[in-house]
Amino acid sequence: VNVYYGIDVGGTSVKTALVSEFGEVIAKRSFSTQASTDVRNMADQMKETLHAMLVDTGISFGAVAGIGVGVPAFLDVSAGVVISAINLGWTNVPLVAILQDVFHLPVAVENDANLAALGESWVGAGQGHGCVLCATVGTGIGGGIVLNGLLFRGVNGMAGEIGHLVVQREDGYRCNCGMTGCLETLCSATAIIRHATELQACGQIPSDAVLTGAQDVFTLAHAGNEGARHVITQAASWLGYGLALTATTLNPDMIVIGGGVSTAKNALLQPVQAAFERYAVPRVVDATSIRLAALGNDAGVVGAARLSAQQRLAHDRRV
Amino acid sequence: VNVYYGIDVGGTSVKTALVSEFGEVIAKRSFSTQASTDVRNMADQMKETLHAMLVDTGISFGAVAGIGVGVPAFLDVSAGVVISAINLGWTNVPLVAILQDVFHLPVAVENDANLAALGESWVGAGQGHGCVLCATVGTGIGGGIVLNGLLFRGVNGMAGEIGHLVVQREDGYRCNCGMTGCLETLCSATAIIRHATELQACGQIPSDAVLTGAQDVFTLAHAGNEGARHVITQAASWLGYGLALTATTLNPDMIVIGGGVSTAKNALLQPVQAAFERYAVPRVVDATSIRLAALGNDAGVVGAARLSAQQRLAHDRRV
Repeated sequence: VNVYYGIDVGGTSVKTALVSEFGEVIAKRSFSTQASTDVRNMADQMKETLHAMLVDTGISFGAVAGIGVGVPAFLDVSAGVVISAINLGWTNVPLVAILQDVFHLPVAVENDANLAALGESWVGAGQGHGCVLCATVGTGIGGGIVLNGLLFRGVNGMAGEIGHLVVQREDGYRCNCGMTGCLETLCSATAIIRHATELQACGQIPSDAVLTGAQDVFTLAHAGNEGARHVITQAASWLGYGLALTATTLNPDMIVIGGGVSTAKNALLQPVQAAFERYAVPRVVDATSIRLAALGNDAGVVGAARLSAQQRLAHDRRV
Repeated sequence: VNVYYGIDVGGTSVKTALVSEFGEVIAKRSFSTQASTDVRNMADQMKETLHAMLVDTGISFGAVAGIGVGVPAFLDVSAGVVISAINLGWTNVPLVAILQDVFHLPVAVENDANLAALGESWVGAGQGHGCVLCATVGTGIGGGIVLNGLLFRGVNGMAGEIGHLVVQREDGYRCNCGMTGCLETLCSATAIIRHATELQACGQIPSDAVLTGAQDVFTLAHAGNEGARHVITQAASWLGYGLALTATTLNPDMIVIGGGVSTAKNALLQPVQAAFERYAVPRVVDATSIRLAALGNDAGVVGAARLSAQQRLAHDRRV
C-alpha cells in the first residue's frame, strides 16, 4: 500500500500528514513557519517531520510514493517554481527542485486553495460530485475548481480565484491585489472584523468586546448581539452573491465553503444560500448544493497527497 | 471524406450548412422559421434543404456522417429533448428522435450559444486556444465555454450563460429570466436600443434618427453623434465588466465576442478591453486575449457540424 506525504505551507504553520491512497490521514504533525522562512531550512524540517511520523506509525520510507505541497502563492506548476508567495516572502523559488534534492521522491506543488478544493472533492464535502467549486474563506478568500476529480487550473492557475471578483464596481474597499471592491474585502475574516469594529465604534457592539478574530464576532452573534448578527448576515450575503456569479459561469453541482469563516456554520450558510438563490437563475440554483467543508484543517494536506498520487498515476500511464 | 449537416434554429430563420470534417462550409442555405414552428414540418424542410444542397454540390447522401442542431433552448442533451425554447414555443420536444426518424442519421442537439462557441473555437477566432469563452451578444446574451476543443456544459448545460450574471445588485432592469440587473439588460442589442431611445427623448440623439436595431446606434456613433457613442461605450463597459467576472472564475486564454453587437468592431472592443483590465486581476488580464468572432453567422452551423463529428468519434471509440 502506498502512502503520500501531504504538506500545507501556511503563513504561521506548516501542516503535514501521511495520507493513504484512499485519503485516510494516517498521521499528522505541524511545525511553526520560521520568521526567516528559509526554504532549505524548511525543507529539512519537513524531512525530520516525515521521519518522525514514519517512526510513530512503523511505515517504511519505501512506502512513501510521493510528496505534494500546497503554498499560498502564484506558481509555475510545470516548472515547479513558486513565482510569488507574499506571506512567505518567496519569489521565484524552485521549490520542487529543492524538495527533490532533500527527499529523492517525486514532488508536486500547487496553490493551497486549489489543494483544499482537491481534498474536499476527493474525500470531503464534494465527494462524488463532478463539478465542485471550493471557496476557502479565511484571512483572504481563495478558491479552487475540481472537474471529474481533477483540478481545473485555468490557463495560468487563476481559475476559481473568487476572492477577486469585483463585486463593488465603485467606491469599494482597497484589496491586497491592488484593485478595489473585491469579494474578499467584504466577506473574509478580515472584512468581518473591520465591519464589527466599525459597529463597535458606534455602539452597536459592546465596547468591551474583544474583536481579534472572526470567531469573536460569531460568538457575539450566537449570544444574541444584533450588531454582530448584522455583520455576519452582510458578509454571508456578499459571499452568496459572489458564489452566484461564479456559478453562473461554472454551473457546478457542489459548492463547498471552508476556511476559518465556515466555522460559523448555519449562521453563515443560511444567508449565503438565500443570496445565492436571489442572484443565480433557478436552473443554476436547482443544480447546485452549497455545503460546509468536511475536512477542516486537513483539506490542504489531503489534497496535497491526492495531487501527488495523481502525478504518479499520470507518470505511470506515460511510461 | 465525411461531411456533416449543421443546423442552427433561430427565432426568425433556420440556417443550415454542409460542413467538411475540417470545418469548411461547403454549401449553405436557410429558410424562414414558420409562424407555427411545427417541429415535424420544420424537420421536413430541413430534409428538403439538405437534399437541395447535395444536388447542388454533387455530394451523395451516404457521405453525410451526421447531423448537429443548435436550438435557443434549455436542453436535456443526453435524452435529446428540448426542455424549453421560449422563442419557438417548444416545450419537451423529443427533437433527436424526430430528426432521426426523418433522416435515419445520428443527430446531436445543443444550445445555440454553446454551438457558436464550439464553432469559433474549432476554426474561428478561438482556434488553437485551450480555454475559450465565447459570448454571443445579440437580442440577448448567450455564452459557451470550450475546454481543449470540447464543450464544457456544466452540470445542466448552464455553464457560460453570462447574460444572467447579476451585475447590478439593486435597482436593475427586469430581465426575461425573472431576475433584475442581469448583464443582458445592460449590453444586449435590446439594451443598446433602449438606452439610445432614452437619450433621443432628452435630445442627445437626433429626434429623426431611426432606432430599430443596435446597428442604427453604431452608425450614428460612427458619424460622430456623442449620445450614440456614450450608449456604446456604456454597453461595452458593462460587457467588459461581465467578462472580467467570468474570467476571474474561468481564467481563459481567449474570449471571443460574437453576435450582432460585435459588428460594432473596435468601437466595442476597445472599451470592453479597458473595462476588462480594470476589473480583472493583472495575472488574469495577462493570460486573456479578447477578440471579435471570425465566423459571423456561420458559427452556429459550423459548431453544430463539429458537435456531430465529435459525437461520431466518441461512438466509434466505444464500439
